[in-house]
Amino acid sequence: MSDSKQLQATERSKVKRLPKRGSYERGLIYEILDEALVAHVGFVVDNQPFVIPMAYGREGDRLYIHGSSVSRLLQTLEKGLEVCFTATLLDGLVIARSLFHHSMNYRSVVLFGKATLVKSEAEKMTALQVLTEQIIPGRWQQARLPNSHELKATSVLSLPIEEGSAKVRSGSPNDSTDDYSLPIWAGELPLRITSGIPIRDPQLSAEINPPENLFNYCRGR
Amino acid sequence: MSDSKQLQATERSKVKRLPKRGSYERGLIYEILDEALVAHVGFVVDNQPFVIPMAYGREGDRLYIHGSSVSRLLQTLEKGLEVCFTATLLDGLVIARSLFHHSMNYRSVVLFGKATLVKSEAEKMTALQVLTEQIIPGRWQQARLPNSHELKATSVLSLPIEEGSAKVRSGSPNDSTDDYSLPIWAGELPLRITSGIPIRDPQLSAEINPPENLFNYCRGR
Repeated sequence: MSDSKQLQATERSKVKRLPKRGSYERGLIYEILDEALVAHVGFVVDNQPFVIPMAYGREGDRLYIHGSSVSRLLQTLEKGLEVCFTATLLDGLVIARSLFHHSMNYRSVVLFGKATLVKSEAEKMTALQVLTEQIIPGRWQQARLPNSHELKATSVLSLPIEEGSAKVRSGSPNDSTDDYSLPIWAGELPLRITSGIPIRDPQLSAEINPPENLFNYCRGR
Repeated sequence: MSDSKQLQATERSKVKRLPKRGSYERGLIYEILDEALVAHVGFVVDNQPFVIPMAYGREGDRLYIHGSSVSRLLQTLEKGLEVCFTATLLDGLVIARSLFHHSMNYRSVVLFGKATLVKSEAEKMTALQVLTEQIIPGRWQQARLPNSHELKATSVLSLPIEEGSAKVRSGSPNDSTDDYSLPIWAGELPLRITSGIPIRDPQLSAEINPPENLFNYCRGR
C-alpha cells in the first residue's frame, strides 16, 4: 500500500455515484466496521450472485467472518473466494420538502478481496475472540470457551482490508432552492439500534443474574 | 407458480444450511420485506460481485428498488440484471453458556431474479408512492410530489418476487446438554431499531411543526 492510512481506490472500489460522500480513510472505515453487527457478503457461483448476512469481527487490517454456507463453498477453492463485503449503518431518515430529495442518513463500507478459510486452530481461536468481543465486549471471559471438537466444527473466513471505500450521508435534506418556502416540515428522523431487557433462557437456574455487559448495551458512540 | 402462497424452492433458493430455519411462505416473506428499511442487492459485473445497500418498496408480488448505481449499469442491459436481493432484520443476540452456541436472532429474506429498469412515468410514480409509504406511511400526502423533470432523473428497478426464501431464528440458545448445569447466564438480548426526536432542518421556518407520523415511528409489529 502506498499510504497505509488509506485503502486503495481502484476501478471497482471507487465511489462513482455522489463521490463527495466517499472516503478511503482507514479511520472512518474501521469505525463503521466496528459498530455494525452484521455484514452482507456477496460472492459469485456460476455467474449467479449470492448475498448472505454474516457476523464478523475486525483484528487490525483483517476481518474474520463467521459463515458456514460460504465456507462449504470455500473448501473447494484453494485460492480463496472473491467477495464483496458490505456493512451498513442506518442513522436516520432524511425528510425533505420534495419527495425527490428524501433520502437516508447512513454510513456504509464496501470492501473487495479474496476471503480464505482459516485453517489453524490458534488463528480460529483468535478470530472467535475478536468476533465475540466486538459483538459483546466481555463475553469471552464469561462463556465456556470452545473445545477442540467445537473448533473443528467452526468455520471462519479471513479477509484482508485492502481495497474498498466508505460512503456517508449525514445532516439535513438538500431541497431545491424554490422549495424552501413551502409550508412542509423537513429535517431528519434519527434511527438507531437499541437493546431491550435481557430475556432469561427458561432453563436457566433462578439464582444466576445477567452480567453487567448486557445492560445498556449499545453500538458505536 | 404451482402454489401461489409459496415461492419456488430452486437449487439456488433452497435453504441448505439449517433447513429447518427456512421458509418459502409468501406471508412470512412479505412481513419481513415490509418491515426492513434497507436491502443489500448483489449483482455481478465481469465475474466481480457487488453488494449495494438500497431502499425499496413492495407492491403485491413485486419489489421496486431505488438505486442509481445499478440503474446506470442496467441502461446497458436489455434483458435485465440477475440480482440477489437480501433483506435482514436483526432481532437480538443469542447468549449461550458455551461460546460455540452463541448466535443471533434474525429474520432474513433472500430473493433471486432479474431486475429491470422501470421506464414508464406512470409506473415510476406508482413505485415511488409504494416506496415512500412503506418507509414513512403518510408522507406521500405531505411532500411536494415529483415533477416530470424529477421523474426522469429517478431510477427505479423492478424485481418480481418469484424465487427465494426466508430464514428465521428466534428464541433461547441451544446449548449442549452438559452445559446447562454451568453457572453461566444464558438467554437473549433483544435488539430493535428505534427512532429519536425529529431534528428540524435549520432552514425550516419556526412555525412549521413536525407531522404526527414522525413521532413514535416504528417498524413491524
